[in-house]
Amino acid sequence: MHVEPVGWSASGALRVLDQTRLPSEERWLELDTLEGVLEAIRALRVRGAPAIGIAAAMGLSAVLRSRLAAAPRDEALALVRETADALAGARPTAVNLRWAMERMRRCAEGARGDGPALLAALRAEAQAVWDEDRAMCRAIAEHGQALMRPGIRVLTHCNTGALATGGIGTALGIVYRAAERGLAPHVWVDETRPLWQGARLTAWELLRAGIAHSVLPDSAAATLMAEGKVDVVLVGADRIARNGDVANKVGTFPLAVLARHHGVPFYSVAPSTTLDLATPSGAAIRIEHRPAAEVSSPFGVAVAPAESPVFNPAFDVTPAVLVTGYVTERGIVHPPFEEQA
Amino acid sequence: MHVEPVGWSASGALRVLDQTRLPSEERWLELDTLEGVLEAIRALRVRGAPAIGIAAAMGLSAVLRSRLAAAPRDEALALVRETADALAGARPTAVNLRWAMERMRRCAEGARGDGPALLAALRAEAQAVWDEDRAMCRAIAEHGQALMRPGIRVLTHCNTGALATGGIGTALGIVYRAAERGLAPHVWVDETRPLWQGARLTAWELLRAGIAHSVLPDSAAATLMAEGKVDVVLVGADRIARNGDVANKVGTFPLAVLARHHGVPFYSVAPSTTLDLATPSGAAIRIEHRPAAEVSSPFGVAVAPAESPVFNPAFDVTPAVLVTGYVTERGIVHPPFEEQA
Repeated sequence: MHVEPVGWSASGALRVLDQTRLPSEERWLELDTLEGVLEAIRALRVRGAPAIGIAAAMGLSAVLRSRLAAAPRDEALALVRETADALAGARPTAVNLRWAMERMRRCAEGARGDGPALLAALRAEAQAVWDEDRAMCRAIAEHGQALMRPGIRVLTHCNTGALATGGIGTALGIVYRAAERGLAPHVWVDETRPLWQGARLTAWELLRAGIAHSVLPDSAAATLMAEGKVDVVLVGADRIARNGDVANKVGTFPLAVLARHHGVPFYSVAPSTTLDLATPSGAAIRIEHRPAAEVSSPFGVAVAPAESPVFNPAFDVTPAVLVTGYVTERGIVHPPFEEQA
Repeated sequence: MHVEPVGWSASGALRVLDQTRLPSEERWLELDTLEGVLEAIRALRVRGAPAIGIAAAMGLSAVLRSRLAAAPRDEALALVRETADALAGARPTAVNLRWAMERMRRCAEGARGDGPALLAALRAEAQAVWDEDRAMCRAIAEHGQALMRPGIRVLTHCNTGALATGGIGTALGIVYRAAERGLAPHVWVDETRPLWQGARLTAWELLRAGIAHSVLPDSAAATLMAEGKVDVVLVGADRIARNGDVANKVGTFPLAVLARHHGVPFYSVAPSTTLDLATPSGAAIRIEHRPAAEVSSPFGVAVAPAESPVFNPAFDVTPAVLVTGYVTERGIVHPPFEEQA
């Protein structure tokens, strides 16, 4: 029903959907080389924290498969370490990516035998990374069913679906599961300026899955709420602080304010690994500011004067007080999160 | 200091800035023919309700100037009526346009003499339409100074400036006046999806006027307010109902909710002719929905699947309870508006 943006080719190469071509073109890449996998991650052809980790794990075994086939153990381990280090650096701030590479390195070190045995272990481990993420998405989606009912109208922002994960997604996974159950959900898809992940990716995967949806300018969400057309807001999370403040794609926080104003429940949906106990509150989260050109010249078209300064934060912080609840693979939880993580 | 988007050429033709080419190109058109003026209005080369009315009034005398020079009175009056009717129909919902054409027709009927005398009267009347709008903008801007202070940071949406009027604008006019007074305002410019009037037009005219500003995705305004970087929100109005509800460009209402949440004052700025006593409340205002392509394929680039439905309301309605005050040429006023109109 949902698209799978990563997979194995028949020959054991890494197969990824080039998300930079969406929604115009569905182009699949077969990646056999380290350079190819690095480029796909760096250029955001594969994106979404879980999907990047999975692609890197699978990519590691894919690009090493011919060289490990004849390598003695020491040489094989050195190859794994070197390749894992290179992949871990492809996107410096991607926590899942580093975690996946560390896991693959430990897997190789813990496996017995020479190159061929290590390759088999690495392939199994990469598959496990993928399978575990798929199961995590399913668990989140099941817990989220407590929020669903027939004909429910869900507003979402950015892309938290199959394209971002190894399964049915996080916030959008709840919608996929509701559709499977025959609840016929309707999804209001914020276009998500400046990079249009909602319009380009979420609408594309919902269309492909046959789930009813409409795309809207981010600023039209308020009208939908005022007209009583939004039953629940489901968004993802990049990081959740110990007190429950949520850092997520810019445009999430205004939705939370609008939801509160209109009495619409607002849920943050993410794996429990997104809870960061080392961050006491949103005030401690540094917000990345991105290039002006994303706002002022999308696709090379000047929509603002090149000389005009731009304010382009990648994320915003939603205070915990505006979040109705947090849907994780453990259930719907609430701060403080000390004892749960 | 500010740009004047309409004017006379040396030969008495209508001169208009082609706003569809902004911000990339500053192209001026000299319009001598009815077809040329109609096309400029229909294609939004001139836009903003006051500016359209002024351009049509000036355009009427410009396109008739050779034919009226030798016309007897009856023939001249017929020409004026026919041309005014044609221009009035260029944008069917533009109230200012019909009002300006009615005024020009009455001017011709009330003037004495043959074609040349009528032409002189029409030119003077068109200039008066322009001058009165310029004075209206100035009066609004003066009243708005009560809201200004040194270094004030103003958030605005869409374009309410010189490009939309015959003077310094409405909401943005208050900023121009503050800048003239040496208050060094900073303007946060919402890009204003889906048509980018903020990024394309407001940023362009502020840059040209040397007024400090930054362009932002509409959904980043909430972050600015949370960071305490917005002192006041100034927006325009397309229609103000008797109870004070305001219809304006989509994206205005969420700003009002966010302003209330953050304790930021929110003002609607418009001529008192925008108050519509025949409309009891915002519930009576029909909201125009615009084509899907504006959202899903800006500049011909597909940012959403062509098959995905789109929710694209042109306007939204801000309830009076969220509006701190209404700045008009008569002062800062408050509903109910019965006795003031």
